[in-house]
Amino acid sequence: MKVPEELITLIGQERRFFIATHINPEGDAIGSSLALSSALESMGKETVVYDRDPVPELYRFLPGAEKITHSYKSLAIGRLPVILLDCSEPGRAGLESVTIPFSAVIDHHETAGEFGDIKWIEPRAAATGMMVHHLLKALGAKMTRDIAINLYTSIATDTGTFRYDNTTSEVLRVCAELIDSGADPAFTAEALYETWSVKRFRLLMRVLNTFEMTGDIAMTHVTRGMFAETGTSAEDTEDFSNFTRMMKSVNISVFFRELEQDYWKVSLRSRGSTNVAKIAVLFNGGGHKNAAGYAIKASLDSAKRALIEAIAAKH
Amino acid sequence: MKVPEELITLIGQERRFFIATHINPEGDAIGSSLALSSALESMGKETVVYDRDPVPELYRFLPGAEKITHSYKSLAIGRLPVILLDCSEPGRAGLESVTIPFSAVIDHHETAGEFGDIKWIEPRAAATGMMVHHLLKALGAKMTRDIAINLYTSIATDTGTFRYDNTTSEVLRVCAELIDSGADPAFTAEALYETWSVKRFRLLMRVLNTFEMTGDIAMTHVTRGMFAETGTSAEDTEDFSNFTRMMKSVNISVFFRELEQDYWKVSLRSRGSTNVAKIAVLFNGGGHKNAAGYAIKASLDSAKRALIEAIAAKH
Repeated sequence: MKVPEELITLIGQERRFFIATHINPEGDAIGSSLALSSALESMGKETVVYDRDPVPELYRFLPGAEKITHSYKSLAIGRLPVILLDCSEPGRAGLESVTIPFSAVIDHHETAGEFGDIKWIEPRAAATGMMVHHLLKALGAKMTRDIAINLYTSIATDTGTFRYDNTTSEVLRVCAELIDSGADPAFTAEALYETWSVKRFRLLMRVLNTFEMTGDIAMTHVTRGMFAETGTSAEDTEDFSNFTRMMKSVNISVFFRELEQDYWKVSLRSRGSTNVAKIAVLFNGGGHKNAAGYAIKASLDSAKRALIEAIAAKH
Repeated sequence: MKVPEELITLIGQERRFFIATHINPEGDAIGSSLALSSALESMGKETVVYDRDPVPELYRFLPGAEKITHSYKSLAIGRLPVILLDCSEPGRAGLESVTIPFSAVIDHHETAGEFGDIKWIEPRAAATGMMVHHLLKALGAKMTRDIAINLYTSIATDTGTFRYDNTTSEVLRVCAELIDSGADPAFTAEALYETWSVKRFRLLMRVLNTFEMTGDIAMTHVTRGMFAETGTSAEDTEDFSNFTRMMKSVNISVFFRELEQDYWKVSLRSRGSTNVAKIAVLFNGGGHKNAAGYAIKASLDSAKRALIEAIAAKH
């Protein structure tokens, strides 16, 4: 993994940065953004950290989470260079209608496009947090406890605390360093996995009751009605797509989330060599080999049928 | 962590060893035993690996699992020195009725007693696998892929893949080395956590549908009817008692399992300082501070009421 020289130069030359990450942010998006912001500020820079959406409850323990803004006014006025993290185009960050004077993309997703004056894409990095860790080393930034907690959480999130196949020995070595700098594995794991609200748990119960199995494809779904009944929202479904993967005979785990009447967000998770990004692309979506998604305008039944057919054709 | 000199000497002097671990073995017991056996054999020694009980299905993927014997005949005849792993007294290994000529104990549990000609107890080690890793380094044993897989699994099991508070930076550094020697984190995690049967999953769905919350006490139960409907049995409920702990507001997690009509096995799990052993004792049960249990002859409703009253009185 090599940090592009232009990125180092950009950070050296500019004094203010607009750090933006994707909508519906999770641990890697938030953790890597806050870590980068904290490091740049310790180098005497100013940063704005932007996310269109609120920080999920789950991640509010991250140091600096309170400074994330949901307004891009400062970008429009200040003509700040944008550093886009964990995504590769402005639309994914809710910035499609803003003029971006200069941009650097730092992302580990495979589906990177044309956007970005500086593009640093590492599909083999387990998390954007791993890339930010490298960047901070290259910049000679001091590793603080706050940065360590943010980076550890970003990497822990995207590796499922070292359970996914992006877990390399380098991931563990970097995380060992982060522990030595103040990250707390048990505290992070409890924050990530054992801080469910009762209503979220009740939502999971309802979702699991929709479980269906077709061949080696497990499907569950959530409707707007279930959100209403339990007082929950989309952010409460984080990771629900992984749930049915605990079964040995499940190869692809699918989670449908109702956006509007006959309009579904589909999350795909797979094991080993099964590439769900290739399936998602057929529906104008994208992602990684083992985690991808798309949106589809159809009834739930048709959406399921279309997906099952697409998987059968690819298998 | 320092390996006792006498242990190095014993291994240097003897040619045959009887390696034994505890009954109802899990990943740390089996993985550390097989790793030690494999290393000693690569040094030209002979080993017998003994467990009174069968290797659970879950752990049969471990290299060498098939060589574990359930007979201690060779010990009785050969007068072999015994290396007791992941426990500290012969009874825990089902060896209470055998004469043991010479013994070495390698264990990370606090409750170590008097037994053992050589005693190596490290309560701060995350797993017995961590101790065996140190021992193999001290012996200069070659790290093979088989050993790496066994040690990685032992450490992953006892740290909940790096989620428990015994996860140190040293744990991650050792596991990084093991990955470099051939351990596969995703394969191991999949073997440990994602090999559920579909019927076990359907049982979980039914159990979760019984979820009730009273104050900070979460309760679920399983009936004999649910076992019958899903084709499952008591062993499929392993770890179900932990499930509701994922909720932040749950302090005590209770799981009732129907043994017979109006006869229930009750498992209690708690967080932090809440001592459920003290509750279990009131019902003639027992256990540890955060994991205890008892059996009660009562209807489910009365059993719940009695428990809630007992907890209220103790709180």
